[in-house]
Amino acid sequence: METELPFDAFARACPSRQTLEHVTGRWGSLTVGALRDGSCRFNELRRKVDGVSEKMLSQTLQALERDGIVHREAQPTNPPRVDYELTPLGVEVADRLLALIHFLEGSMPEVIGARESYDATRGGR
Amino acid sequence: METELPFDAFARACPSRQTLEHVTGRWGSLTVGALRDGSCRFNELRRKVDGVSEKMLSQTLQALERDGIVHREAQPTNPPRVDYELTPLGVEVADRLLALIHFLEGSMPEVIGARESYDATRGGR
Repeated sequence: METELPFDAFARACPSRQTLEHVTGRWGSLTVGALRDGSCRFNELRRKVDGVSEKMLSQTLQALERDGIVHREAQPTNPPRVDYELTPLGVEVADRLLALIHFLEGSMPEVIGARESYDATRGGR
Repeated sequence: METELPFDAFARACPSRQTLEHVTGRWGSLTVGALRDGSCRFNELRRKVDGVSEKMLSQTLQALERDGIVHREAQPTNPPRVDYELTPLGVEVADRLLALIHFLEGSMPEVIGARESYDATRGGR
């Protein structure tokens, strides 16, 4: 790659590869994107990230918290209340993810057209 | 979500969810990012996306081709030569992905600091 940075996600041993996987993985991008609207409790977040299981959301949040992208705030109430929010670093990551997500949403007519044409010509191969 | 677009990746049944997974999945973001430098043969691409297996790269490319993000060009030579390149849509996607990747690479000192502090305080929980 042309980058001059000491970290290179294209190299398998680089720690940035792991962080890229956390923020783009199966549920990472939607979780980070959903938190861009503000602090959120676990179950609220689970509703926003439609389809995620409790276990997967919990694993995703833990990896994002460890990377300093999400902040977990446990209130000393009974029952305990736990809020999740983006850190300043997480906000920067979310803005870049949402730029990608919104671009893809806006490109879906083109993507759907490409799929139809692919299926029509290559479906049999 | 606040978006006015008819497509919403946060909804599990939306076709944009699938495309988001193709471009951000385990190997999608690196494959699309690596192709930003220009057209590439399969084995070249496999070297750039360090760690990807032949099978995974092939599945990743097929999903990206179907979505109209990657163009596959088979030359009628013997042995056949196959080149992969980004479509104009793919270039737009790659630029957004590389913005995210380069931002993460540049943020790794902060991420590594967060991991150390997380492991020191939460390691035992």
